[in-house]
Amino acid sequence: MTSNFLSKMGRRTGLPPISWLMQTALTRPKLVSLAAGFTDNATLPVEISRKLLNEVLRSPTTGQPALQYGITAGEMNLRTLTAKHLQKLDGGHDRAHSPEHVIITGGSQQLLYMTLEALCDEGDIILVEDPTYFVFLSILQSRGIKARGVKLERDGIDLAHLEKVLERLEKSGELRRVKALYLVTYFQNPTGATTSLAKKSATLKLLKKFERAAGHPLYLLEDAAYRELRFDHGADVPTALTLPGAAEHVIYTGTYSKPYAPGARVGFGILPKPVFTTVQRIKGNHDFGTANLLQQLLAGALSSGLYDKHVAKVRKNYARKARVMKQALADHFPANVEIWESGGGLYFWARLPEGISTSVKSKVFQAALKADVLYVPGELCYADDPSRAKPDHEMRISFGSASEENIRKGIARLGKVLAKLGNGK
Amino acid sequence: MTSNFLSKMGRRTGLPPISWLMQTALTRPKLVSLAAGFTDNATLPVEISRKLLNEVLRSPTTGQPALQYGITAGEMNLRTLTAKHLQKLDGGHDRAHSPEHVIITGGSQQLLYMTLEALCDEGDIILVEDPTYFVFLSILQSRGIKARGVKLERDGIDLAHLEKVLERLEKSGELRRVKALYLVTYFQNPTGATTSLAKKSATLKLLKKFERAAGHPLYLLEDAAYRELRFDHGADVPTALTLPGAAEHVIYTGTYSKPYAPGARVGFGILPKPVFTTVQRIKGNHDFGTANLLQQLLAGALSSGLYDKHVAKVRKNYARKARVMKQALADHFPANVEIWESGGGLYFWARLPEGISTSVKSKVFQAALKADVLYVPGELCYADDPSRAKPDHEMRISFGSASEENIRKGIARLGKVLAKLGNGK
Repeated sequence: MTSNFLSKMGRRTGLPPISWLMQTALTRPKLVSLAAGFTDNATLPVEISRKLLNEVLRSPTTGQPALQYGITAGEMNLRTLTAKHLQKLDGGHDRAHSPEHVIITGGSQQLLYMTLEALCDEGDIILVEDPTYFVFLSILQSRGIKARGVKLERDGIDLAHLEKVLERLEKSGELRRVKALYLVTYFQNPTGATTSLAKKSATLKLLKKFERAAGHPLYLLEDAAYRELRFDHGADVPTALTLPGAAEHVIYTGTYSKPYAPGARVGFGILPKPVFTTVQRIKGNHDFGTANLLQQLLAGALSSGLYDKHVAKVRKNYARKARVMKQALADHFPANVEIWESGGGLYFWARLPEGISTSVKSKVFQAALKADVLYVPGELCYADDPSRAKPDHEMRISFGSASEENIRKGIARLGKVLAKLGNGK
Repeated sequence: MTSNFLSKMGRRTGLPPISWLMQTALTRPKLVSLAAGFTDNATLPVEISRKLLNEVLRSPTTGQPALQYGITAGEMNLRTLTAKHLQKLDGGHDRAHSPEHVIITGGSQQLLYMTLEALCDEGDIILVEDPTYFVFLSILQSRGIKARGVKLERDGIDLAHLEKVLERLEKSGELRRVKALYLVTYFQNPTGATTSLAKKSATLKLLKKFERAAGHPLYLLEDAAYRELRFDHGADVPTALTLPGAAEHVIYTGTYSKPYAPGARVGFGILPKPVFTTVQRIKGNHDFGTANLLQQLLAGALSSGLYDKHVAKVRKNYARKARVMKQALADHFPANVEIWESGGGLYFWARLPEGISTSVKSKVFQAALKADVLYVPGELCYADDPSRAKPDHEMRISFGSASEENIRKGIARLGKVLAKLGNGK
């Protein structure tokens, strides 16, 4: 008997490429992993969470509800706190920031998954940044959804290219299959790029322009997972939710996982009404709603101000580690490697000269592994888009979970490998 | 613009019928709900959980890991404890109870969802008990999977009918589309029926007999969600996992939600290897694995023995409430209503004379609502199976969340309605 008992989806769902990397990391105890997107163990809010959980479970108003079933879309208290939190991040802007449109999920990953379930049939098309978040590509692959790449610049997608892609899809009759454009708008995974508000605005206009030809809304799916991991204390870029027409056109996903704790996995979305309705029903079928205990923990953190205090600490920590990585790159990387330094998040993006492959089977990757340092090959972050060859000369390097000492060590090792193999000779 | 932006699945995913019932309950403050499948607030392990979470977060070995990302299939510690726990329930039997085949999920609901994703395409068929768990039917409906009912007796499905259904499907050429038989084997939702081991064994043999004609395994999907809510302290019925061939043919789902706490939503499955592999990958796309904080809480409860102590208390409580309901039914229900009394779980099943409808639009339901008592119409628990009309003369009545006083009150009110309207006049 073969795998003919599996659904088409079951057969399409491959081993995620990153799991191979993580397995590899486990088998080499001296390996410095600059691949993992984990957050820093040292900054996890262990004491804060203990204190908050004691309060939640001691209180007669929250103790039992925290351990009981709740509402599929999430506790109204947390939904309201989430809407307020986003309004604050968006400088008091309250357009489209209504608690009624907030849904609480098991991390933002679950929201991305359910949104794709709600919008896309097999054969539908999602536009993505080129490169983009590779687990999102895995979901598309698993669900038989096609991804089409839009060139990414350091301040967001290339608008002229987006227009060209949309025109090409219109001409080929495929525009009807396009459901959304997926953008990781803050300190993007993998490149660290942040999309400017001007680009968000122009993107939304372009999408609206093509809606008539598509015959339905073309949603801007804004993934703000890394938004709160900003290094400086300057102004935040507002979300697309603040733009005219956002309430009907923008699907926003965020998370408390990265800034607070991945182990208390709570994410959220703000969705246009009809998408909200469908995603909420799907969420009911998945799990009836995210565990109340985790929701109460986050509600406690937000309402007490401990969340903001913790995030400030986390940001300082990542800012320091990013500086360490920046210095190490200056010290050890050859000059022909272009570095996209990020203003937040967990990643830098390194671009080798074209022609020098960084893929898993490349000399560079194998030599790096031998030298006990691991990175994410850039190639894994590019969609299977037949309109262009997949670039394979880049790498994502993370300062998220490695210690400062290991960041220095890892970059030094990688620099040595690149000095030897990175000249295209 | 219409809903043409939704996927076929999105359009199929309706409002769950139960949510209407729950909305109704909220608008009538004096209403006694015998509809909800919630667990009893009073028995939730608030103090135990507080103690355990303090230990988890105070310990240097579990504190940080509890708040960090983990492994997609779940923490090995909890998977091992889960395998051991099941072995104990199954009288020391260890066939197919390997931690490597255990996956931890966000309640058993999520496992059911992902298992259907792994196995079923649109148009595939799942055999179900007639009646069965209505949220499972909602998932099938949402995913375009057909359900075919097998008659249910008080000790499990009617084996002769199962054989007839399989033969009919073979004859019509549809057997290839059948992927599994779904059984809620302990104190079934909605009827309270428990499947005997003899019936599990005969069922497994029948499924195997038809596998050659199907061209692939016909899985027995055993949902044991209510297993631990057994009233007496006699022997537990072993699972289908203890039967020969189980490792390849049985998908077992269980949960800590019902016996411990729905708000710390942790469920699990034991899956045949190839199904495990695919479900694990799908789980990675959903959420990378269930929140570690919840997993550590359950691991602490299981390893400390506090879980077993708590479950013993919960069982006593439900046993007492079931006795209260039984007495109230004897006092207030007319003799022409057949009661399926359960030996565990949260539900009794009441069968009115055929011809007396209990459905949402029926006189009985409307009169009950007017009398401020709510039940789940039995009709909602029957699959859309064109081979028979949907029975609509039954009701699920729950003693799970209502107080003893409200159970008495609710049954008295319902009894009065039935005395008036239940004679088919």
